[in-house]
Amino acid sequence: MVFLCNIRIFAFMNFSSKLIEEAVHAFAALPGIGKKTALRLVLHLVKQQPEVTVQFAEAILKMRQNIKECERCHNISDEKLCTICADSRRDQSLVCVVEGIRDVMAIEGTGQYRGLYHILGGVISPIEGIGPAELNIDSLVERATSGDIREVIMAISPTIEGETTIFYLSKKLRGLDVKLSTIARGISFGGDLEYADELTLGRSIVARVPYKGAGE
Amino acid sequence: MVFLCNIRIFAFMNFSSKLIEEAVHAFAALPGIGKKTALRLVLHLVKQQPEVTVQFAEAILKMRQNIKECERCHNISDEKLCTICADSRRDQSLVCVVEGIRDVMAIEGTGQYRGLYHILGGVISPIEGIGPAELNIDSLVERATSGDIREVIMAISPTIEGETTIFYLSKKLRGLDVKLSTIARGISFGGDLEYADELTLGRSIVARVPYKGAGE
Repeated sequence: MVFLCNIRIFAFMNFSSKLIEEAVHAFAALPGIGKKTALRLVLHLVKQQPEVTVQFAEAILKMRQNIKECERCHNISDEKLCTICADSRRDQSLVCVVEGIRDVMAIEGTGQYRGLYHILGGVISPIEGIGPAELNIDSLVERATSGDIREVIMAISPTIEGETTIFYLSKKLRGLDVKLSTIARGISFGGDLEYADELTLGRSIVARVPYKGAGE
Repeated sequence: MVFLCNIRIFAFMNFSSKLIEEAVHAFAALPGIGKKTALRLVLHLVKQQPEVTVQFAEAILKMRQNIKECERCHNISDEKLCTICADSRRDQSLVCVVEGIRDVMAIEGTGQYRGLYHILGGVISPIEGIGPAELNIDSLVERATSGDIREVIMAISPTIEGETTIFYLSKKLRGLDVKLSTIARGISFGGDLEYADELTLGRSIVARVPYKGAGE
């Protein structure tokens, strides 16, 4: 079997074309894309009309060259202020602190939040060498100090690093006239009690909430 | 659960940036790349230096604009003749007929073949509307008629469409002074008899070969 495996790995070294080889390497440098997938993508582009590749490359180049960081919340943006910060219909006194851009997308997807965001750019993780200085914490403190903010919601993953970050933020924001909150934790809607982890289930019993019946 | 799923799908509609949205659509148009993966790739490029994206786009554009089809064997090539056809050390009288470019790479990977290739560009498949006219069959007959070719090896997948194609090719090439052969079929090296399909196992017994012992 070792013999067979060697053949398969070796098979991808024979590109017979320098151009194909370079394009495969370019795709394979992206996260989660191996050489096999990269080759499939390149051969797909070769089969299509050349315009398809030009449009593909232009969309990505245009994105990378024009994308900005929102100067208020650090979200990715086409303009100086992102569409969320620039939207005057949103509650400007409510700030939701998240780790990354994908969290913003997930929360926006719920349609349940109408405030602003603040993107930290990660969580405090000494193992990965990420300290408070590497995160957008100073600008958050600045926003909170301005007096325009009524409440800061810390929507950060309940991992060890996340909890550390929440603790650090709460120390930094303490003393300011700002309400601090975290998102509710417990058993997922649609989740099965049987398969919930012990910590979540245990805490969801301790932090139980009064039942509001339909008649009340 | 339906409710939760809807949230997840909907979450990917909120890009807050037109540029990001267009780049995600460009990646998601590639085969096997969904919106979730596309977003991950785009956010990866955003995190890197702009030069990374420029180099990525340039490698792909350069490949697509300069790639040619070898005018002899229809392989992808940087020049008019591919590196395999142009290699005078290879046996120019031996042609291996394959479905596609990936088959060439796989056979080259074995290091066992030193002849030339001929890429059909697929197999005859009435269901998918691929007839002999859509494949590079005429140019194969032309090569075989030239008198330079001693043997044509048909290395085509043993599927129904593959066998049909082999039958069609054999009819087309019959009468020419060219030896026709197919690649050997049977149980894979390292393969387990127990898990081999009945057709392969049955035929491998019918087509058994004399054992050449170490001493002979």
